[in-house]
Amino acid sequence: MKKKYTGKLRIVPLGGLEQIGMNITAFEFEDSIIVVDCGLAFPEDDMLGIDLVIPDVTYLKDRMDKVKGFVITHGHEDHIGALPYVLKDVNVPIYTTKLTMGLIENKLKEHNLMRSTKRKVVCHGQSINLGDFRIEFIKTNHSIQDASSLAIFSPAGTVIHTGDFKVDYTPVFGDAIDLQRLAELGKKGVLALMSDSTNAERKGFTQSEKTVGITFDHIFAEHQGTRIIIATFASNVDRVQQVINSAYKYGRKVVVEGRSMVNTIGTASELGYLDIPENTLIEIEKIHNYPPEKLVLITTGSQGESMAALSRMAADVHRKVTIEPTDTIIFSSTPIPGNEKSVSKVINELSAKGAEVIFQDAHVSGHACQEELKLIYALVKPKYALPVHGEFRHLKANAGLAESLGIPKENVFIIQSGDVLELSQDEAKVVDHVHTGAILVDGLGVGDVGNIVLRDRQHLAEDGIMIVVLALERKTKRLLSGPDIVSRGFVYVRESEALMEEAKQVMAESLEKTLAGKNIDWNKIKMVIRDTMNDFIWKKTKRKPMIIPIIMDV
Amino acid sequence: MKKKYTGKLRIVPLGGLEQIGMNITAFEFEDSIIVVDCGLAFPEDDMLGIDLVIPDVTYLKDRMDKVKGFVITHGHEDHIGALPYVLKDVNVPIYTTKLTMGLIENKLKEHNLMRSTKRKVVCHGQSINLGDFRIEFIKTNHSIQDASSLAIFSPAGTVIHTGDFKVDYTPVFGDAIDLQRLAELGKKGVLALMSDSTNAERKGFTQSEKTVGITFDHIFAEHQGTRIIIATFASNVDRVQQVINSAYKYGRKVVVEGRSMVNTIGTASELGYLDIPENTLIEIEKIHNYPPEKLVLITTGSQGESMAALSRMAADVHRKVTIEPTDTIIFSSTPIPGNEKSVSKVINELSAKGAEVIFQDAHVSGHACQEELKLIYALVKPKYALPVHGEFRHLKANAGLAESLGIPKENVFIIQSGDVLELSQDEAKVVDHVHTGAILVDGLGVGDVGNIVLRDRQHLAEDGIMIVVLALERKTKRLLSGPDIVSRGFVYVRESEALMEEAKQVMAESLEKTLAGKNIDWNKIKMVIRDTMNDFIWKKTKRKPMIIPIIMDV
Repeated sequence: MKKKYTGKLRIVPLGGLEQIGMNITAFEFEDSIIVVDCGLAFPEDDMLGIDLVIPDVTYLKDRMDKVKGFVITHGHEDHIGALPYVLKDVNVPIYTTKLTMGLIENKLKEHNLMRSTKRKVVCHGQSINLGDFRIEFIKTNHSIQDASSLAIFSPAGTVIHTGDFKVDYTPVFGDAIDLQRLAELGKKGVLALMSDSTNAERKGFTQSEKTVGITFDHIFAEHQGTRIIIATFASNVDRVQQVINSAYKYGRKVVVEGRSMVNTIGTASELGYLDIPENTLIEIEKIHNYPPEKLVLITTGSQGESMAALSRMAADVHRKVTIEPTDTIIFSSTPIPGNEKSVSKVINELSAKGAEVIFQDAHVSGHACQEELKLIYALVKPKYALPVHGEFRHLKANAGLAESLGIPKENVFIIQSGDVLELSQDEAKVVDHVHTGAILVDGLGVGDVGNIVLRDRQHLAEDGIMIVVLALERKTKRLLSGPDIVSRGFVYVRESEALMEEAKQVMAESLEKTLAGKNIDWNKIKMVIRDTMNDFIWKKTKRKPMIIPIIMDV
Repeated sequence: MKKKYTGKLRIVPLGGLEQIGMNITAFEFEDSIIVVDCGLAFPEDDMLGIDLVIPDVTYLKDRMDKVKGFVITHGHEDHIGALPYVLKDVNVPIYTTKLTMGLIENKLKEHNLMRSTKRKVVCHGQSINLGDFRIEFIKTNHSIQDASSLAIFSPAGTVIHTGDFKVDYTPVFGDAIDLQRLAELGKKGVLALMSDSTNAERKGFTQSEKTVGITFDHIFAEHQGTRIIIATFASNVDRVQQVINSAYKYGRKVVVEGRSMVNTIGTASELGYLDIPENTLIEIEKIHNYPPEKLVLITTGSQGESMAALSRMAADVHRKVTIEPTDTIIFSSTPIPGNEKSVSKVINELSAKGAEVIFQDAHVSGHACQEELKLIYALVKPKYALPVHGEFRHLKANAGLAESLGIPKENVFIIQSGDVLELSQDEAKVVDHVHTGAILVDGLGVGDVGNIVLRDRQHLAEDGIMIVVLALERKTKRLLSGPDIVSRGFVYVRESEALMEEAKQVMAESLEKTLAGKNIDWNKIKMVIRDTMNDFIWKKTKRKPMIIPIIMDV
């Protein structure tokens, strides 16, 4: 006898709706929860010293008995990067495609989590059953291979989650997005479509990855006499494949440089996602055995990251590669917002060495533009539209598209992380808001840096610190030593001796007065030190270094 | 009897060739020096806490008897912003056009320099004589009114300096660029052309400022029922004029908000560069007397600057304006490289409040694209080309244009700040390199923050600080108090008590051992403290806070 359901489907995004990054969404039906993706975010500019940001998964931890598994759409950091951290608390199996699993396993090995983590590789077209859910992996296209859209079947109806996607009719590797299956599901009836909003502000259609290969061929044809260096995203295996294709065609050897690039190519190649002709790849140590015009270097650093290989070459601190005036350097990328200046810096440095730098037309996006989003809406014809993956402006643009295609405004939901959207065939509404958040990772510390520490770092970064230290006799409160002043990041003390001397003088006078008074205690002395120093420094410099009074009690 | 010259002209850029900003160039002929522009630069991302950057003018200070005056091309900060600082050392007269002088005078008043600074307003078409030089001011177009190109006549030949420019055949105010005069000078023979490289990578022709007015009219026509808020650059008086024109046409009152906007409009209006119909401008306090659809706000904040008016409105902390879901907000600007993320943040915040945000098509650049640069080369036909104003990539693109127009490669000079380019009718070459540099301004301090202080600020920003303090008896080196540990920006101490307690323990043990040893001195103790703490903290957290040992000597 078939089980009868009256329940509703709950969609609970735990991140990813206020920024690009940290994608993680719980789907809940009665006693079953599945989690789609588990990504990290890169720190905002004001998160000083932070390495990465992961989602707060208290919601899952509080419902551990329900959580059936992670279902991962593709292998980018903003979809898999938090797994090693979150698995420590939410240790459930991971389901995803082969290459994606390979990239996840690289992380699990680093964190020594391979043995404790259950994993199951799924093919496109396959389904898995997790509690009340069935999840079908549907082939899609993106700037990394093996990306999936998901059909999430629940007793309350079917949700299609596009994952990150574009429509590429002529992908470099494997099949195009399975538009037929999406149409078939649409025909049967789809409750909700969650679709990638990244490029929803852009008109038209994203070009096929293959067009980049054609550009490479043109550039290779025109630069047969020079060494070629190509910087791109480490995870874009198809891009690397196309560099290799052009290199092979023009009789060049290929060198791979940059740790993440070497790792990804290794994994992709092992798993059969790269087709490298024999004797094409050479070790970087061997580059001096070949004339420059017989070489292509594929390297990291397309975002101007200061520690990446290309940036080190540009700054003349790379140990194995020196940029020559005869080099041709291709940025096969566009700057991610926020990286424009660092990319420009690297372009300037490379140009100043006389190299030719090509930074246009050798890249296409991995995300769908407006016409592709409309196509998916038209095939899937969802009752409810739920734009995901983007900043608010992107979500809003995607919502606008949905409305323009006839989905009633009240059926289009721009929700926030933590909102609980409850859906059934009859209605959809936000019924609750649960705790979510961003946990900062700094070195080994996970969550030990919060707002107070960040505010202190910002303060220290802005104006430095002044430490006022003195020793008092415990009982008499007689000054035994000091006040001494130590500063860092405030002024160059050797050239500001007069100022520091005067500060010490002012401090000493103020202290003398305070210590002579009645009812003095440690806190009062500290307050006086802070106020006196703040006033003096502000008057003299219009700056506000952090003032730290330290009283030694002898 | 006419004086005979055999000398050469020396062009000495003291800034502006490694970045956008800090434009200042000395022209030297025998005993005469004139200085073109005197701008500031905004701090780079790693210049933590710095307010602005000014050029080191040691070269001028060492030749004060020769320096005849400053000749200023236009009133943007990167051309006038360093004047109040540099005038304190190099107090020579300023020559420029009326509006430019008005904007300079605002600065001189702030710095109390009006009385001590000689100033002469020059009209377009007029020339001034300064020592061996004659300088003619030539009308040009830019994103600020009253911009000039300069013809610098010296006994060694004529140099044309375009200043920042575009070719606008239909400017909003005043005349188009004086192409006839440039052609006439070209016909007579021009030794060198220094031209604006900012947009030299961009194909085509920069659109006329008037096209923005047409866009405004369209937007006003389509949004007759909502309040309109327009953010733009405070200094773009023509842009403001066009907002006022559209407002007047559609029967709206205009409110100006943001300190720099109010100041510039005040100056421009006083000097007759703005035509404001009576009863159009209203005080911000009066906005509640009018229905929203009868109002336009012109505001600062088009770059997402966190303290600017629009950002404060977006963040709900503006005291007089609250963003409503019915507002239409226009960014009449493009983000300056580096500001993309902050602009996006403001757009997200405004969109999230339900407002419609228009951030495309309501702006044109103030700098010449490739076709305009070619036009100037074709009119002026200089013997030597000297690309200026831009990062290296821009200078190189401009140099490429010059070469493509037939100027021999060896006559095109990409020089650096400090290079001394010596020119005569026979030859041009870099003969020397003089001291230049960037001086950091932080609050009232000019030059008291250098590399050491910046490195400390970066270190503090990254991982915070740990202060280890103890009191020792002077003679016996007996520990009287401590070691105490105080940290800021490292971990949230309340939640890391165990770590801090262990650190103290480790420190105490290490100190005990050290103090028991022989031949100990202050420096050795400090070294031990630093090493012990660094090791312990790195092992526990993989972080490297700054460690400051302080020993009180009692």
